[in-house]
Amino acid sequence: MVISSVVHHHSVWGHWTQLRWLMNFHRRTMVQWSTAPAQWTLKQKEPVLMPWGASPQSRRALHPASPSFQEVMLTSERYNVQRLPFSHVSNDDVAFFECLMPGRVITNPEELKPFNVDWLKSVQGCSKLLLKPQTAAEVSQVLRYCHERNLAVNPQGGNTGLVGGSVPVFDEIILSTVLMSQIISFDKVSGILVCQAGCILENLNQYLEEKGFIMPLDLGAKGSCHIGGNVATNAGGLRLLRYGSLRGTVLGLEVVLADGSVLDCLASLRKDNTGYDLKQLFIGSEGTLGVITAVSILCPQKPKAVNLAFLGCQSFTQVLKTFTTCRAMLGEILSAYEFMDDKCMELVKRHLKLSNPVTGSPFYVLIETSGSNSTHDEEKLNNFLEKVMISGLVTDGTVATDEKKIKMLWSLRERITEALTHDGYVYKYDISLPVGKLYDLVTDTRARLGQCAKNVVGYGHLGSGRVLEESLRLSSSGDYCFSLFSVSLPHMFCIKEMRGKQEQPIACL
Amino acid sequence: MVISSVVHHHSVWGHWTQLRWLMNFHRRTMVQWSTAPAQWTLKQKEPVLMPWGASPQSRRALHPASPSFQEVMLTSERYNVQRLPFSHVSNDDVAFFECLMPGRVITNPEELKPFNVDWLKSVQGCSKLLLKPQTAAEVSQVLRYCHERNLAVNPQGGNTGLVGGSVPVFDEIILSTVLMSQIISFDKVSGILVCQAGCILENLNQYLEEKGFIMPLDLGAKGSCHIGGNVATNAGGLRLLRYGSLRGTVLGLEVVLADGSVLDCLASLRKDNTGYDLKQLFIGSEGTLGVITAVSILCPQKPKAVNLAFLGCQSFTQVLKTFTTCRAMLGEILSAYEFMDDKCMELVKRHLKLSNPVTGSPFYVLIETSGSNSTHDEEKLNNFLEKVMISGLVTDGTVATDEKKIKMLWSLRERITEALTHDGYVYKYDISLPVGKLYDLVTDTRARLGQCAKNVVGYGHLGSGRVLEESLRLSSSGDYCFSLFSVSLPHMFCIKEMRGKQEQPIACL
Repeated sequence: MVISSVVHHHSVWGHWTQLRWLMNFHRRTMVQWSTAPAQWTLKQKEPVLMPWGASPQSRRALHPASPSFQEVMLTSERYNVQRLPFSHVSNDDVAFFECLMPGRVITNPEELKPFNVDWLKSVQGCSKLLLKPQTAAEVSQVLRYCHERNLAVNPQGGNTGLVGGSVPVFDEIILSTVLMSQIISFDKVSGILVCQAGCILENLNQYLEEKGFIMPLDLGAKGSCHIGGNVATNAGGLRLLRYGSLRGTVLGLEVVLADGSVLDCLASLRKDNTGYDLKQLFIGSEGTLGVITAVSILCPQKPKAVNLAFLGCQSFTQVLKTFTTCRAMLGEILSAYEFMDDKCMELVKRHLKLSNPVTGSPFYVLIETSGSNSTHDEEKLNNFLEKVMISGLVTDGTVATDEKKIKMLWSLRERITEALTHDGYVYKYDISLPVGKLYDLVTDTRARLGQCAKNVVGYGHLGSGRVLEESLRLSSSGDYCFSLFSVSLPHMFCIKEMRGKQEQPIACL
Repeated sequence: MVISSVVHHHSVWGHWTQLRWLMNFHRRTMVQWSTAPAQWTLKQKEPVLMPWGASPQSRRALHPASPSFQEVMLTSERYNVQRLPFSHVSNDDVAFFECLMPGRVITNPEELKPFNVDWLKSVQGCSKLLLKPQTAAEVSQVLRYCHERNLAVNPQGGNTGLVGGSVPVFDEIILSTVLMSQIISFDKVSGILVCQAGCILENLNQYLEEKGFIMPLDLGAKGSCHIGGNVATNAGGLRLLRYGSLRGTVLGLEVVLADGSVLDCLASLRKDNTGYDLKQLFIGSEGTLGVITAVSILCPQKPKAVNLAFLGCQSFTQVLKTFTTCRAMLGEILSAYEFMDDKCMELVKRHLKLSNPVTGSPFYVLIETSGSNSTHDEEKLNNFLEKVMISGLVTDGTVATDEKKIKMLWSLRERITEALTHDGYVYKYDISLPVGKLYDLVTDTRARLGQCAKNVVGYGHLGSGRVLEESLRLSSSGDYCFSLFSVSLPHMFCIKEMRGKQEQPIACL
């Protein structure tokens, strides 16, 4: 299963063989439709690498240390996959699209390059055509045409995905949501926002903050990622602990199916029990069932008080015990619990000049509280801190209450992914494992790879239940790379190593 | 569309005509499969009607004032629906089932009666066979056999549903989950409970409370309803405001499809992004796609401090303004906001001898807080109460902190449905409307029905966003009854009145 990282959502079918009715749906376009989120947005800036405290820039973008586009291997070569018998884009096709959306049809190879390569520069497609529709009606016309002409399509949002799913594998037409960035409505009483799929997460959050609300999700890639891509990939992110998953907060979707038909499930009722909840099929389906063109989402009120604690722990066991204590003592105001190892902090310091105010610990945790009463919240946080310091669970730490300092501390966590890209190729896995075994994966991988890997680091959300994000950094000469099967149960996780085109399991958990 | 209240989930297809692939799935059994929840459980007691303070019995059960089974009209007569060409149950069929599950095959007409009539006694089927499987394997064998023999099946949970969806329309075989009440596992670290579908909600909650957790949902029918039925109907209930919908808290399902195949989506990971989230299709699908046999659900920790305020308001506008103030000032600890009109309180007093400690207001609200620090929570609640009393939004009220008094106040709200059944037939609608217009429906219906209705009352959750539960009580001689289309958008809501077999719209909102 050499192409597992590209089409990782397919492996699940192995144990649901009864459901032919779902598999057969638009099977033709399924294989080449990969992930929805994608695209270096036009508004994206080059990142400004500042010392700690200067700019908590979280926008994902290219940086000088990255390999150039030319160095990125073609997906088809890396994974030895064969193109399916889709039609090739003809001059007539281009003329049709140019007539449909004049000036928003890109064929210039230079302009196309950043849309063909993923953010981690691990895979590259060779699309020759990029379309930038502005409305669901245009998306519908494009898909109907492509369906009739048997042309493969790759929907793309902010192109911030880390698993190579947002870019074409071959010459699929890239359908970008970059110009679908209109806010359609916001209701202050219910907190329900309706917007087009191409709205950038951070822009939505800024819009809402002015009205006393926030988005129910937050990601390191917020400066570039599109809300449509967030929904298509069921992004969890930094606020999941407090506001739950998109399956609960997304109230409605407008989706264009592969044949061009528009499915309007844009409900703006919090409770809607009529019929099957079809929109759920599209949440997390990564563009394989349709293109999300608009989203209705329930937004929480902006918390009046936010506190942040950045703490040092001497072992991963202590990180876990601190989490249990924290969950019990901070209860309803706990809004984030992130951990990272010292290697992560070393990397953000070296590459991004961010300095960690807490040093000398093998593990760090970032704890955020969000509540309606600052006095109460600070009291709860202080009681908690006193307890973990006295019991020795935590050995060092700092607390921030003002917005600027909070952002600075958050950037230590949010910019780890960016820091990792400065050493060459990075293979990043977002893994769900029982909490107790999370860090064993890092330790075991370090031992297994030895000098072959430049960095093997562990960090991520503990608060979301059982999630580990792990990054493996390989030496630039590295002849190892990893693919990880995304399957639903921990005991089925299987890490494979690949040397050239051969791969063998190295660990089954 | 005379049968809309029986097969109300079908009306949605009108505007999703593209999705033939879903419609064609097991279409044969779809029409006669109605709702999953149902059954007067064996453990169910006759309600003990005590004065206020004596017994906050919330168990739904028959009471002496109800019409006898004989008085309940057959669904097929009331709605003039025709039986589809399913096979009839033969002696050979009964012998097969008796061999499969000896002693758990009921054919005695007397024993079958309560399974054929819904809790509100508004509809009646005439099933001649009730099966009580204990395992998913048995459910699978039953369904495979019925599929081959073309026998219609009606899955039934606690039979507490209020829309007539839990009982057979004709002679469908009733497949009850009453004996599927095993708890499979509970993980204290993650709070994940895995159990069979027939577990009674209240029993699960009691089991969890001993371990410091609670169920993420609570309903008036908790003493009888089955968790499988809760999931099949996507029950919201009293804790939705705090813990969100079942779409977020249900982590996995085991479902047996109509052909007997078992779909195992019993994940116990909080985040699982692999493949399509098929379990979502079964949440709220009311037994039409399969029988839920086991549930994996994320349970929150039991809150350390619970407070309850029961307040009087002079108008519905003040109820809404109090909600806005409450949401802002109580923030993360607000766990319930229920309203009820004075007519509701009059009924629980007259029929159930429950007395409301707050009197003389046209509207009442019940506000519950759940938090981790009693001092903080009481302070927040007091600040809120001071504000709403001074501003005149609230004119009277009482506050409870001890468990017994809290249960008593809750029973004023939870037992309204029970009180309503004491006057004859009740038609109860659980409606989603924009909050501002919620109560207009009650006022307009009262004006329209005049003396024909004994009671028209309004009560329900405001906290869940936009939900109204409205009950219409008709005179026992009443020649009016109502059917309400369950559709997804407010502007499509349409109330119809029926006189004999003729029905006409009386209001389109």
